Amino acid sequence: MNAHLSASQLPRGFAYSALACGLKKSSLDLGLLASDRPASAACVFTTNLVQAAPVLVSRAHLTKSRHKILGVVVNSGNANCATGPQGLAASSATAGKAARELGHHHPSQILVCSTGVIGVPLRVNRILRAIPHLVLTRAASAAAFSQFTRAIMTTDTRPKWAAASCRIGGKRIRILGCCKGAGMIHPRMATMLAFIATDAAVPPGVLSRALRQSVARTFNAISVDGDTSTNDTVALLANGASGAPPIRSSGANYQTFLAALEPVSRSLALQIVADGEGAQHVIEIEVHGAPSDCAAAQIARTIATSPLVKTALAGADPNWGRIIGAAGRSGVRFDPARVEIRMAGILMCRRGRAHHFNERSAHRRLLASHVPIVVDLHSGRGSARIWTCDFTADYVKINASYRT
Amino acid sequence: MNAHLSASQLPRGFAYSALACGLKKSSLDLGLLASDRPASAACVFTTNLVQAAPVLVSRAHLTKSRHKILGVVVNSGNANCATGPQGLAASSATAGKAARELGHHHPSQILVCSTGVIGVPLRVNRILRAIPHLVLTRAASAAAFSQFTRAIMTTDTRPKWAAASCRIGGKRIRILGCCKGAGMIHPRMATMLAFIATDAAVPPGVLSRALRQSVARTFNAISVDGDTSTNDTVALLANGASGAPPIRSSGANYQTFLAALEPVSRSLALQIVADGEGAQHVIEIEVHGAPSDCAAAQIARTIATSPLVKTALAGADPNWGRIIGAAGRSGVRFDPARVEIRMAGILMCRRGRAHHFNERSAHRRLLASHVPIVVDLHSGRGSARIWTCDFTADYVKINASYRT
Repeated sequence: MNAHLSASQLPRGFAYSALACGLKKSSLDLGLLASDRPASAACVFTTNLVQAAPVLVSRAHLTKSRHKILGVVVNSGNANCATGPQGLAASSATAGKAARELGHHHPSQILVCSTGVIGVPLRVNRILRAIPHLVLTRAASAAAFSQFTRAIMTTDTRPKWAAASCRIGGKRIRILGCCKGAGMIHPRMATMLAFIATDAAVPPGVLSRALRQSVARTFNAISVDGDTSTNDTVALLANGASGAPPIRSSGANYQTFLAALEPVSRSLALQIVADGEGAQHVIEIEVHGAPSDCAAAQIARTIATSPLVKTALAGADPNWGRIIGAAGRSGVRFDPARVEIRMAGILMCRRGRAHHFNERSAHRRLLASHVPIVVDLHSGRGSARIWTCDFTADYVKINASYRT
Repeated sequence: MNAHLSASQLPRGFAYSALACGLKKSSLDLGLLASDRPASAACVFTTNLVQAAPVLVSRAHLTKSRHKILGVVVNSGNANCATGPQGLAASSATAGKAARELGHHHPSQILVCSTGVIGVPLRVNRILRAIPHLVLTRAASAAAFSQFTRAIMTTDTRPKWAAASCRIGGKRIRILGCCKGAGMIHPRMATMLAFIATDAAVPPGVLSRALRQSVARTFNAISVDGDTSTNDTVALLANGASGAPPIRSSGANYQTFLAALEPVSRSLALQIVADGEGAQHVIEIEVHGAPSDCAAAQIARTIATSPLVKTALAGADPNWGRIIGAAGRSGVRFDPARVEIRMAGILMCRRGRAHHFNERSAHRRLLASHVPIVVDLHSGRGSARIWTCDFTADYVKINASYRT
């Protein structure tokens, strides 16, 4: 999105801070996102059965606080996952300390997120010792937000953020989001984390609905390596500091808000794909003419996670045979004799068989940074869109490197 | 299995031949496996919805001939898949020509298999022209069988075969099998093919049951890249030439036969995994303590196809966090706090969290050519075993290389 964040894009009433507490060797590894008043909060968490301690604690806090949250504490360098009762105690202590330092609030008003190594005990004392300073140094500035986006990074090569604004009842509201991760892609590292703050006034139920709607079409429509992390979290906080009227669950204001929220979510999601380990291309897979939207998504996902499709794309190889092969094993019924496949705008397969195309020019077009693939099954009206990246030798090198 | 095949290991009544008909640039690309009398035949074919012409034609021939087959014609270099009505005509013509040359038999007594590029019309005239010579030169010799095993290769680095024998009703019967492939692993190349010949006398129904039982535990328990090919076929032919009494569906003879057949299937399947593109290690994944065998298999498959697990193994990284992460996203319900994980015999995770182990010695043990992984969920009595290989930068290089 924008290259520089200006002060006018910052949602009112939110402050940020970051520091290096010693979980990573030297860089920023602890961040705080705080609201100056209780903010409505909506979260979506990983569907992995193995869930990290901060996910379990944050979910409980959301319920206990009736979805009214004052801040989020995030650490990188350790996922605090598969760490047993000690891990749960660490996340609870982090929330408790932050709540106290922010003004003797209840611990349930703090969410906790972690990202990093799985199965290693968290040195929570380093976090607890750092929290007073973290709270004291929080600032409502673009510079502080920028530090926060860096503190949540693990294998990310760059910070990822996006902003939008719109008018609700004549008042300007702002949406600002950031995220980290590219699947679950580093040795023992886990996690995709995203935080979106808005100064719109949105009751928790409405906020949750808006988050779910936008996540389904953005964060849940990307794949880097098909491995769902144990720590994935998207948190959306709305503190109403803009002074705009509350957004109700139906009507024009809801649609206006959603229309501003979804591009922020999509931009963050696509930044994750583009920064996927070793990735050279963002691949956009559209499936049309499926028996249902759900069937279309199933086919799109099978194509997006096929090592054969992804390695062919790494080589800019117009290898549509692998795409029809992946569709065929997806479990969806369709008539293979009606399938049409286009890569980078070039028709390569028609009625389930080869359509003549110029291989050289197709190869050249597949070298682009953004490669669209369109599969039309001509077997219904269902459609879906998924983004992924190619699968390069660098991905393997990064993930096969021995940790010590 | 055996380094050299001796004449005494050849099932009676089968002959083999191979030649270069011009589908590949210079090497052997057409093979014949013929029985001197109608043999009971059982086949399992790919479950991919997109099925190659030879699969469709062979399935129809099996029904039409009431599972009594005289020969199998196999070509490499072209999968004859996604080739429309012309592709079906090509497979039918191949069967017709071979049936005539073998002595004016019905085309349905011939099975046809293809492996190679998808979506390119098959130059069937080259095959038809070569068939008379192919039929004339067939021989019941180890040398001829060896040529046949080479003619079916595509990206395989070596021919793959296995043999066994046992006594049925006092008479020795022999089982000889060969196969090609390592998943669906070459640019536009498809296919795992396996052919097993035996001179035991087995009615088609019993043969089919024996094949299904042994395939479930062998060929269906391996994965190289998770991509099911459009041409996969395992064919088992039993011609009774040993003179041994027919094997019935129950009783000791059936068990004796199965006990000889399964090691042949397993050896062939493991040879495919060991020859997986870029593979350095064969990984054996056992899951115990699952709610059911089916649930155990689902978890084992999710681990076996996880790019994160497979790349970690390429680097001999004792990264059990990725294994528990993959199990968690498999869709099976279990209690993460009871999970136990061993890699190469070393306990690394107990009660769902880290168990101390020596990282250096674990790394050394993971450098072995065969690496066992055992996951015990302690949540039931279901178990499963799957074999796969590691995922190396070489796999990506081979599959990303542009075809021209």
